[in-house]
Amino acid sequence: MPLNLQTHTAHFTNPLYLESGRILEPYDIAYETYGELNADKSNVIVVCHALTGSHHAAGTYEGESKAGWWDGLIGSGKAIDTDKYFVICSNVIGSCFGSTGPMSMQHPHHEPYRYKFPVVSVKDMVKAQRILFDRLDIHRVHAIVGGSMGGMQALQFAIHYPNFADKVISMAATHATQPWAIAFNKVAQEAILKDPDFQQGYYDPEVIAQNGLSGMAVGRMAGHISFLSHISMREKFGREYKLTDGLYELFGKFQVESYLEYNGYNFSKWFDPLSYLYITKAINIYDLSRDFDSLSEALKKIKSKLYLISFRDDVLFKNFEMKEIAEELDKIGNSNYDYIDIESDYGHDAFLVELEKFDNYVKEALNE
Amino acid sequence: MPLNLQTHTAHFTNPLYLESGRILEPYDIAYETYGELNADKSNVIVVCHALTGSHHAAGTYEGESKAGWWDGLIGSGKAIDTDKYFVICSNVIGSCFGSTGPMSMQHPHHEPYRYKFPVVSVKDMVKAQRILFDRLDIHRVHAIVGGSMGGMQALQFAIHYPNFADKVISMAATHATQPWAIAFNKVAQEAILKDPDFQQGYYDPEVIAQNGLSGMAVGRMAGHISFLSHISMREKFGREYKLTDGLYELFGKFQVESYLEYNGYNFSKWFDPLSYLYITKAINIYDLSRDFDSLSEALKKIKSKLYLISFRDDVLFKNFEMKEIAEELDKIGNSNYDYIDIESDYGHDAFLVELEKFDNYVKEALNE
Repeated sequence: MPLNLQTHTAHFTNPLYLESGRILEPYDIAYETYGELNADKSNVIVVCHALTGSHHAAGTYEGESKAGWWDGLIGSGKAIDTDKYFVICSNVIGSCFGSTGPMSMQHPHHEPYRYKFPVVSVKDMVKAQRILFDRLDIHRVHAIVGGSMGGMQALQFAIHYPNFADKVISMAATHATQPWAIAFNKVAQEAILKDPDFQQGYYDPEVIAQNGLSGMAVGRMAGHISFLSHISMREKFGREYKLTDGLYELFGKFQVESYLEYNGYNFSKWFDPLSYLYITKAINIYDLSRDFDSLSEALKKIKSKLYLISFRDDVLFKNFEMKEIAEELDKIGNSNYDYIDIESDYGHDAFLVELEKFDNYVKEALNE
Repeated sequence: MPLNLQTHTAHFTNPLYLESGRILEPYDIAYETYGELNADKSNVIVVCHALTGSHHAAGTYEGESKAGWWDGLIGSGKAIDTDKYFVICSNVIGSCFGSTGPMSMQHPHHEPYRYKFPVVSVKDMVKAQRILFDRLDIHRVHAIVGGSMGGMQALQFAIHYPNFADKVISMAATHATQPWAIAFNKVAQEAILKDPDFQQGYYDPEVIAQNGLSGMAVGRMAGHISFLSHISMREKFGREYKLTDGLYELFGKFQVESYLEYNGYNFSKWFDPLSYLYITKAINIYDLSRDFDSLSEALKKIKSKLYLISFRDDVLFKNFEMKEIAEELDKIGNSNYDYIDIESDYGHDAFLVELEKFDNYVKEALNE
């Protein structure tokens, strides 16, 4: 059956009460759907995206060369089978692909929020999605699936909306962001802030889209180190040298340097720097145990069946972080979960690139 | 016995022929010595410093609050016992603490080299030291000891000057710089180059010393991630928050953020950015097998007894890199070496901070 890719934007005029005590009002949420909603609305799967992802998780638009970021996982006959399930993926608030973010116009002014945008948390992102589903008259879903920041959202759904999903699949994520992840974000934030073209947040977004922003490129390069693993870097780049560059030229390029440069500068043209600051902030303050006495108190709220997936060589969200969740679940006597640690050389990126390592697992979890 | 710390600068007018085919002429080498040279000059130990280190390896100058970088290892009764040994540590060429580097005056002009400075390699650094020792009429030494880039120098000594040292102790190093280390260097280089205050290399060094350079600070922050380990970061910082900052302020600070900021900006005031570009380049192109058919062909040159030390959680120079040297030595039937992998939570920094984990080993190796 065809994917039936549809794109929508929902507009909300009710205030969104944020964790910080501030409100967002009005706001938009951009989302995509795939497949068909069945009559009793029992076939919904929510997919959550990562830091720089978007609601465009599957399919290919006309004129687009690349499919959505989880196209290998979502579609007819795939692990998240759109012949069977109605899949929704929404762009998180704070992002820059259609949902309200720091460069959206602040009502009633016709100026972007920029720094007036409130800090949002992963819990806020989830709350906004929950309100979207309400609008769509969807009050319970079959499953929530996400990786990295998407996996954080899945866990926040499980804790704060315990009756919402039958199954929650969280991969390449953690229960609370650890200092090394905060450190990588810090490098990026600092590089952005100190770039004069960022103009202390008062940049012209069209100029950035045209020229990129070297500070964000530098930050993204640091990010790429955290997405890869030692093994994958060795296999991918080794010590290969670009033929045109001499070894003894100061700026001669190893392949890994070219890779970082290309991806860093390219990225800086299509992602908004203020969104990058706000979303990395949301990741930094992510902590499942906030507002609870402990992680186990938070986990006690969960009623969904949990599926936890870590990747052995992930250096951003270490596999032991996911294992810590499993151990806490054991402690509180919750056996309604499954945890697997996947052997993959790809590091954190595995959740995006090595789908064959976990697509069957996801398929079976959904069909179980 | 007193440390007998002495500082010298040796001036050389003979050209230094570099690996690149270029020459450096004239040039200076700044060095320190500790202890007393014995009558038959059989008690010399060479200590080699890392990327941002200097010849000031031990002791404390008047008015200085901090001792030299390996003060815990070098001194009376310490592992490198200055009651017994005469220790020499020299500042590598390309650095910025007295030896000739990119901000030195280019003869016969009275302008700094800046980009006219030639690319130097770790092998070149070693060659320059060998010439210094010749000047000092020292033609054979008891041992060479170094960590990180210092460990690279130690290995280059062993291969290119096989009759020079009885013992070579290399720690927290590798046989060839791997893509992840090159990637961390790339982030720093790019951040420096794109900083407008760097003025494309034509900065005023006094202004930098006064104000720092945010690009170098950003780069150094990335570096710090590679110096630490996941475990040490968790223990050191956790998710602690600076009391004065609110969790929901965009620029509120986790302790790890304050640490990176403080160390990054502080560093950028005392280290020269062009030296940083040149020395990271030297590290990137470091490869023991260059000019040989293979690593094992290079290792066949070695006559010194080798002591190889890796640190289990080092993410910059992974312990398996050192192990690969040991395996190659086995293959070529060289059993005149010892390899240990040290359990330390400190990551790469262990060679500077967790001396108690290896000082006895070094002491015994030297006395053996």
